[in-house]
Parts: sequence; C-alpha cells; structure tokens
Amino acid sequence: MILGAIEAGGTKFVCGIGNENGDIIEKISFPTTTPEETLKLVTDYFKDKQIEALGVGSFGPIDLNTENSTYGFITSTPKKHWKNVNLLGELKKHIDVPMAFDTDVNAAALGELEWGAAKGLDSCIYMTVGTGIGVGAVAEGKLIHGMLHPEMGHILVKRHENDTYKGNCPFHGDCLEGMASGPAIENRWGQKGVVLSANPQVWELEAYYLAQALVNYILVLSPKKLILGGGVMQQKQLFPIIIENVVTLLNGYIQHENLLVNIDNYIVPPELGDNAGLCGALALAKNMISKLS
Amino acid sequence: MILGAIEAGGTKFVCGIGNENGDIIEKISFPTTTPEETLKLVTDYFKDKQIEALGVGSFGPIDLNTENSTYGFITSTPKKHWKNVNLLGELKKHIDVPMAFDTDVNAAALGELEWGAAKGLDSCIYMTVGTGIGVGAVAEGKLIHGMLHPEMGHILVKRHENDTYKGNCPFHGDCLEGMASGPAIENRWGQKGVVLSANPQVWELEAYYLAQALVNYILVLSPKKLILGGGVMQQKQLFPIIIENVVTLLNGYIQHENLLVNIDNYIVPPELGDNAGLCGALALAKNMISKLS
Ligand SMILES: Nc1ncnc2c1ncn2[C@@H]1O[C@H](COP(=O)(O)OP(=O)(O)O)[C@@H](O)[C@H]1O
Ligand SMILES: Nc1ncnc2c1ncn2[C@@H]1O[C@H](COP(=O)(O)OP(=O)(O)O)[C@@H](O)[C@H]1O
Ligand SMILES: [Zn+2]
Ligand SMILES: [Zn+2]
Repeated sequence: MILGAIEAGGTKFVCGIGNENGDIIEKISFPTTTPEETLKLVTDYFKDKQIEALGVGSFGPIDLNTENSTYGFITSTPKKHWKNVNLLGELKKHIDVPMAFDTDVNAAALGELEWGAAKGLDSCIYMTVGTGIGVGAVAEGKLIHGMLHPEMGHILVKRHENDTYKGNCPFHGDCLEGMASGPAIENRWGQKGVVLSANPQVWELEAYYLAQALVNYILVLSPKKLILGGGVMQQKQLFPIIIENVVTLLNGYIQHENLLVNIDNYIVPPELGDNAGLCGALALAKNMISKLS
Repeated sequence: MILGAIEAGGTKFVCGIGNENGDIIEKISFPTTTPEETLKLVTDYFKDKQIEALGVGSFGPIDLNTENSTYGFITSTPKKHWKNVNLLGELKKHIDVPMAFDTDVNAAALGELEWGAAKGLDSCIYMTVGTGIGVGAVAEGKLIHGMLHPEMGHILVKRHENDTYKGNCPFHGDCLEGMASGPAIENRWGQKGVVLSANPQVWELEAYYLAQALVNYILVLSPKKLILGGGVMQQKQLFPIIIENVVTLLNGYIQHENLLVNIDNYIVPPELGDNAGLCGALALAKNMISKLS
C-alpha cells in the first residue's frame, strides 16, 4: 500500500510516500513561502505517486471541527501569508484521495504509537518542548480533539519560590509554555538553552515545571507512555530530574508498575528520530484507510 | 429493550431496570453491608427481570484493565469488607448477560452525555465535589480510562496567597481534593459547608481552586460540556464565581463561543437529578449493547 504524507511546518513542508509499516520510501522538502507557491510544489509532487490516502500533520492553530466551514484551515497563525488559508481544501482540489488532517503533535503522537516508543499501546502523550510547547494525545486508541483543539502546552503550573521570571506567554504569563519553552529559558537566563548545558540550576527549574505538567496529564488522561521531544529535550540530563520530580509530586498515589518500577521506560524520548513528523503523517493516512475499510 | 443498572456505592447499592431511552422502570436499594449479603440481594433482584445487558457504575478504586486478573475488582478501598472484592465476577456468576463495568463518575458522565446536560455531544466532563472529588470524562465519544484510572480529582492547584490551610489529601496535601472537597471546607473553616452559605469568602476560595482544575481539564481534554455535581455544588452561588475565575485564567486564549458567549451553558449542574447514578449505569448497559451489535 502506498501512502502519502505531509509534515506541514512553518519553515518547510516535508512531503513523502511510504507504506503501512511506517517505512518512508522517498521524501522531499519545500520551503514554506506563500501558500500558492508552496502548495503548487506539494500537489505537483504527489501527482504521479498513485497514493491511496494522504495524511497531513500541520502547524497551527488549525480548525479540526468537520462541521465548520473553516474545517481544514490554518486559522490565526502569526506566520505571514498563512492566516486563514484553506490548506486541506487546496490539497483536495488537486489530489483525489481520502485525506486525514490533524495537528503536527497529534500526528507525532500517532506515529510514535504505531511504530515508535508507544508501539502496541492504545494511549500516549507526545510533548514537544521547543519554540512553543505542544502536546498530542491518544486515549482509548483515538486522537483527542474535543471542542476546539486541546492546548495542553498552556496548562497552569505553580511557580518555583526562587523563580522571579514573569513568564512569556502573551495570554497567561506564567503558564507551562510561558515558563518552560525554549524562548522562556533564553529570556530567564539571558542565553540560549544549548549553551547552558553545564548549569544544573537551569535544568532543575525546567524539570520542575515540565514534571508538574506531566503529573497533571497522568492524572487527567492516564496515558500508557509519555514521550518528550523538541529542541529543549536534547538536554538529556532533563529526563532523570523530570522523573524524580514526577515521583515526588505523585507521592505513591498511582500504584502502577509504570511509575513504581518502570518509570525510566515510561517517560522517554521519541523513537522515530528525523522522520517523526513524516511518519506521523503516514500514520494518519494509515488510520484513515483502516477507518474506511 | 430491558436493561439492568447498578449504582454500587459505599452506603447503598441501587439497582433498577430501564430502557434505552434512559427511562427508569423500577428501582430498589440495598444497604452496603458485607459483599456476601449485599451481592446476594442484588443478584436475586435481577433473577427474573429478563434484562439484555447490565451496566455497573461502582465506587472505587476499581480495576478496569481487562487484561488483569483483578479486572472487575474493587481494589484498595478503605471500606470495610470490600477490599479486593471481585464485584464483577460475583455478578457474572449469577447473571448471564453482557456486562459493562466502570467507575461511578464515568457512568455519570456517560449518563449525562446520553440523556442529560451533554446530550447530543461527543465529549464532556462530570465532576462531583463531595467527600472526595471524582471526575469522569468522555472524549471522542469514548469513556477515558488509560493506564490505571484517571484520577483527575487530585490534580495540582496553586494555593491562594491568603489561604493557610495545609490541605487534607493523605498523598499530596494541597492537591485539588485536598483543598476543595467537602471535608477540606469543613476542616479549614471549622464548620460544614452547608452552614457556611452566607460566608462569601468560603465560596470565593472554593471557586478559586475548582476553576483552576476546570481550566486544566479544558486545556487537556477540551470537553464540550463541564458538569459539576455532588454535595458541595448544592451551593449554587459557586457557579458564577467559578465561571468568572475560568474566564480570568484562560484570558481569551480559547476563542470558542462556549467560553466567549455561552459559558453559563458550558459549565453547568447535572440534569439527571436523583437518578443520575442509575441512569449512568443504564447508559453503560446501552453502550455495551451497541458495541455488540
Ligand atoms: N540542544 C538544545 N538545548 C537546549 N535548547 C535547545 C536545543 N536545541 C534547541 N533548543 C531550543 O529549542 C527551541 C527550538 O525548538 P525546536 O524544537 O528545535 O523547534 P520548533 O519548536 O521551532 O519546531 C529554541 O528556543 C532553542 O533555543
Ligand atoms: N448543601 C451543601 N453545601 C455545602 N456542602 C455540602 C452540602 N451538602 C453536602 N455537602 C458536603 O459534601 C460532602 C458530601 O458529599 P456528597 O456528594 O453528598 O456525598 P459523597 O461524596 O460522600 O457521595 C460533605 O463533606 C458535606 O459536608
Ligand atoms: Zn499560556
Ligand atoms: Zn491528592
């Protein structure tokens, strides 16, 4: 089975074809310029590929409510030229196969569930800690959408008593994203995270906030795996500190082996590496085919 | 279609029969004494009722993982005689119909979704604020379970700067349940909530904590309706203060009419009244039948 996949990002659109086992057969990427230019390249690419379905994991915010007239649109993005663009509609004009459309983080969560760190499970959370903090979730085998789109990156956190940084979320100030995204680190410490590796204070504080979010995700969704990716999570020393904080915060409340004995294998990095985004989109396409058959 | 329903509580077991429209045809209740005694009365009751399926909404904690040998058990409850009781197994020994088993709060969420405040929707949250704080959730049309059982009542909250109460959760101290359950109110103010109606400070603080939890549920699950019941929510003056706090905390981040224009109709009391628990169990049975057909 040949499936198409698009990882639609603010910098580039990665397109590729693959199969139902998550193998990428070929891929290509186009810079994100104007919608006209970029989408022409994208749709031309797929013209002779004889794909059976297409999965699209997109940057956002996007409208995922199939009942809305703006379903499939990129909505209120600050990205120039891309506000209120009917991404899915444009693709459908030129490519005549079933399409699945979701957020980049939901695609990543599904990809990790199909072929990566959460393989064989029916739930997981995928969190990317980068320029923003985005989270995708699968529960009971289904991607979670709800009323609008879950925005777990903005959940409330308690500030650390020694942390005077006010937070950089334009809406909430000191929500999770406001306190723990890459730019928040840079703002607080006056240097980019990548050069702060050797300063343990930075990562203690970072883990303090990320752990609070994970604890709330565990209490609300009880996912079977928590997968943490994105630029900031390149700092691998974060994992053990996050885990320590999660254990302290839960304080034995959840008596499950994932937390009691296997926690190093419960809160983990992604497994799909460079192809994560594209594999995620492929997983969306695969899911779409199973739904149809 | 005749369906059976059991609301298994720590004080009493309410049993009844009803139909797929949520009509209760008859009901009866038995005190929760020993498992032998109580379950004998329960199974005898259903003997000649010719039900096609049975739904059970139970107090907990219960094991909902169908792969476990303790699936269907009441596990670590402090309730005398009921620790490690194979509730579902006992019922199955005597009643030979398909059975659906879930938490009391998940049943309540499903009941409200089928026939109550969330009718016609595919997601909602049901929260009860009473002796404890329990939450059930439906997302993408499915009850959420996950790894163990979600325990949303214990999510983290920021304490109010003027609140010196240490919280009464044995695990976390000042988690949501520790700060906002009925016993926490009684502990903090030295009197039961029911006699504190006229003290606005009590309800300002209560709403401050409940609103934080709702905001996190909205950001994580994005449910289409938030339904708040239980003894403490009898204080109806809580609703407008909770709503005010939710709006302040979200600060315009979620641009959805449910929050912007219809919030009085988004954060609401339950609609099923006295029969909520039994209707919830009936909804579990109905769901089970649709899954099988
Ligand atoms: N190795 C690193 N260590 C710490 N921070 C990093 C590292 N690499 C990238 N970052 C930070 O992560 C952010 C970029 O996140 P990234 O996931 O790479 O991209 P994006 O979120 O824009 O898709 C920047 O704020 C950057 O400073
Ligand atoms: N009208 C009321 N106003 C405030 N608090 C109340 C009221 N009724 C009950 N409560 C409190 O709610 C708790 C009992 O919750 P309830 O939902 O009735 O039962 P349970 O949670 O045990 O099933 C007690 O702590 C009680 O003080
Ligand atoms: Zn925010
Ligand atoms: Zn607690």
